[in-house]
Amino acid sequence: MEKELVKQIGNILESIRRKKPLIHHITNYVTVNDCANITLAIGASPIMADDIGEAEAITSISSALVLNIGTLNERTIKSMLAAGKRANEIKIPVVFDPVGAGASELRSRTTERILHEVRISVLRGNMSEIRFIAGLNSTTKGVDASDTDQQSGIEVGRSIAETVAKKFGCVAAITGATDFLSDGKRTIFLNNGTKLLSDVTGTGCMCTSLVGSFCGASEDYLFAAAGGVLCMGVAGEIAAEKTRETGNGSFHMALIDAVSEMTVATIEGKAKIHET
Amino acid sequence: MEKELVKQIGNILESIRRKKPLIHHITNYVTVNDCANITLAIGASPIMADDIGEAEAITSISSALVLNIGTLNERTIKSMLAAGKRANEIKIPVVFDPVGAGASELRSRTTERILHEVRISVLRGNMSEIRFIAGLNSTTKGVDASDTDQQSGIEVGRSIAETVAKKFGCVAAITGATDFLSDGKRTIFLNNGTKLLSDVTGTGCMCTSLVGSFCGASEDYLFAAAGGVLCMGVAGEIAAEKTRETGNGSFHMALIDAVSEMTVATIEGKAKIHET
Amino acid sequence: MEKELVKQIGNILESIRRKKPLIHHITNYVTVNDCANITLAIGASPIMADDIGEAEAITSISSALVLNIGTLNERTIKSMLAAGKRANEIKIPVVFDPVGAGASELRSRTTERILHEVRISVLRGNMSEIRFIAGLNSTTKGVDASDTDQQSGIEVGRSIAETVAKKFGCVAAITGATDFLSDGKRTIFLNNGTKLLSDVTGTGCMCTSLVGSFCGASEDYLFAAAGGVLCMGVAGEIAAEKTRETGNGSFHMALIDAVSEMTVATIEGKAKIHET
Repeated sequence: MEKELVKQIGNILESIRRKKPLIHHITNYVTVNDCANITLAIGASPIMADDIGEAEAITSISSALVLNIGTLNERTIKSMLAAGKRANEIKIPVVFDPVGAGASELRSRTTERILHEVRISVLRGNMSEIRFIAGLNSTTKGVDASDTDQQSGIEVGRSIAETVAKKFGCVAAITGATDFLSDGKRTIFLNNGTKLLSDVTGTGCMCTSLVGSFCGASEDYLFAAAGGVLCMGVAGEIAAEKTRETGNGSFHMALIDAVSEMTVATIEGKAKIHET
Repeated sequence: MEKELVKQIGNILESIRRKKPLIHHITNYVTVNDCANITLAIGASPIMADDIGEAEAITSISSALVLNIGTLNERTIKSMLAAGKRANEIKIPVVFDPVGAGASELRSRTTERILHEVRISVLRGNMSEIRFIAGLNSTTKGVDASDTDQQSGIEVGRSIAETVAKKFGCVAAITGATDFLSDGKRTIFLNNGTKLLSDVTGTGCMCTSLVGSFCGASEDYLFAAAGGVLCMGVAGEIAAEKTRETGNGSFHMALIDAVSEMTVATIEGKAKIHET
Repeated sequence: MEKELVKQIGNILESIRRKKPLIHHITNYVTVNDCANITLAIGASPIMADDIGEAEAITSISSALVLNIGTLNERTIKSMLAAGKRANEIKIPVVFDPVGAGASELRSRTTERILHEVRISVLRGNMSEIRFIAGLNSTTKGVDASDTDQQSGIEVGRSIAETVAKKFGCVAAITGATDFLSDGKRTIFLNNGTKLLSDVTGTGCMCTSLVGSFCGASEDYLFAAAGGVLCMGVAGEIAAEKTRETGNGSFHMALIDAVSEMTVATIEGKAKIHET
């Protein structure tokens, strides 16, 4: 089963590099450069366009849409909703990263609005954000998952992913020490990654961009989400090996390096993934 | 001829480092950090200011203005036009990067508006963008040149550069595998660079910032444009040699390294440039 | 005296890493990624939120607020004032970086407005900016200190820091070849750093983020400011040693590396600091 899963992910990776899908991002200005670079590194093509005057037009020429509320504002919220609806009309996948949902009224309300007005293909967040969306207690502090939330445990993680997936008819991808991905029927656990990923800003956003890239090249969004999360985790491990003694700046660059050098063989050799 | 050309470019480079010209950018939020850092690396001084309340004032203290529509919006379009007109009044060069012209109505319309309301010194774009501006068929997909457009051929490239230069009374600089630069009378071909430059976001924007820096230190905008494009190409080659096996993140950093270490001797040793 | 000072700073550093204070930034889009990453590197947790709909809410869950006008606009100025007032109400420190004060009417007026409407804990700027704020002649050119202003001399530097500190009831931190920090009563001189710091954009902003991180973990804002400035200077020295022959891109990454690897022992070994 796991072998078959990894093989499917490898196929999508090859498909990204063949098709170079255009991935439209409406995202935050903190990590946007890394999102663009990681999209290029995996083999897709990023475009960032957030003005209401072109958001729908750019979505129309794209293969997937990534919405990320890391530095949301009134202007870009409107563009996200318009682009999301357009993506639904033309049936391209929408990947949503609810950065800091639960940390402010504006983020929480916007998250709910996007989830209700746009049909989301993959919802990618940390445990605090997804707990909030699931209507559970969440002790989010800012944009990082709280330690308490992260220690939710395997069964709770699975249950939340499944519940959220069913509620919104999407793939829920909760990333953390263990990643939980579910489309409501099938659930995938991943155990790649490194604690160092939380020492660089935007590794969550970059993971979402990778998921967007995979979704731009596959119609099985659960496998596509798993592909994005897996590549991020494996890249983190490779970067950590190379730079553990060097520091965060080098790790950050090594992360992009590892994604750009990612091969099917690397994935097959390193994947710690299973479907249940 | 070529030797003289490279010598002139070397002189401008030395002049940048002596004068440290202030280069006002109204640019996109994806690659803005790289634009600032490459401007510093070549020896100029960047300032980014896009509010209508100060755009003209900042242009007034600058030696060149760079306009880049990579993430244009209603607010910054107004500032670009105001700053551009101010630059014309005080006779400092305006370098324009029409990112994604042809990819959306908003980008196309804004490009036309800037070209008609502001006297542009150098227009720097990829083959898809400049074909669009020339009124030719263009198959742009997002913000990167399409493969079809890039294979326009030498004579077509030269002809488009010359036509656009004459039409707008500017230097047209089309960058790609071969770069075509023309002021309508003189035309320069460059063959430096590496395919890896398209694996990092913003290498086009950075090239435009280098052109802006060269324009801030010379009144011959054709030679200045050639200087910016040449430095980017040569830096790409040096960075590729150092990091070909390492990956995109390392290449990205090595690119900035190479620009900051660029010397007249390096340019002289590596330039593949000729005027026709 | 110096030894005691460095020991206090070391204690704050350890406290940052223990508490991981949340540092709310309303800052510019040029260097925001570096600000977030350096905040993580020193051990604190960054959050960037500039919409008026959440600026106060995010301040309310934070341990310090950083205001930076590097790319100010009408929208974010309102958010800065609202967040600043909220920070004052809940008594968390506000660190203000008046980027380019004196370079445009908008920057000058906004700087004055923030200083008058918000109680600032630490004002961190270069000599041109702080001279402007002190009402002295300032020859700022853009966002970097002018050479003339930087050569103000030791006694002038001290006097300006003390005057500004008294006038605004804050810690004034003037950074440059020699850094002058004063709370109006006590004054600290620092001599760490390297000229290379001015070759990378945002080292001033990053320094302000470090000061914000230290202020989030200590109530002695003079010592906190000294801690941030000291860490930046020491990191600059370490990065310069490693990358002097390599270039600006590598120096930039090595700077983040050095902050993430900073230890109390490193600070103790390298600090060139004294109180007078």
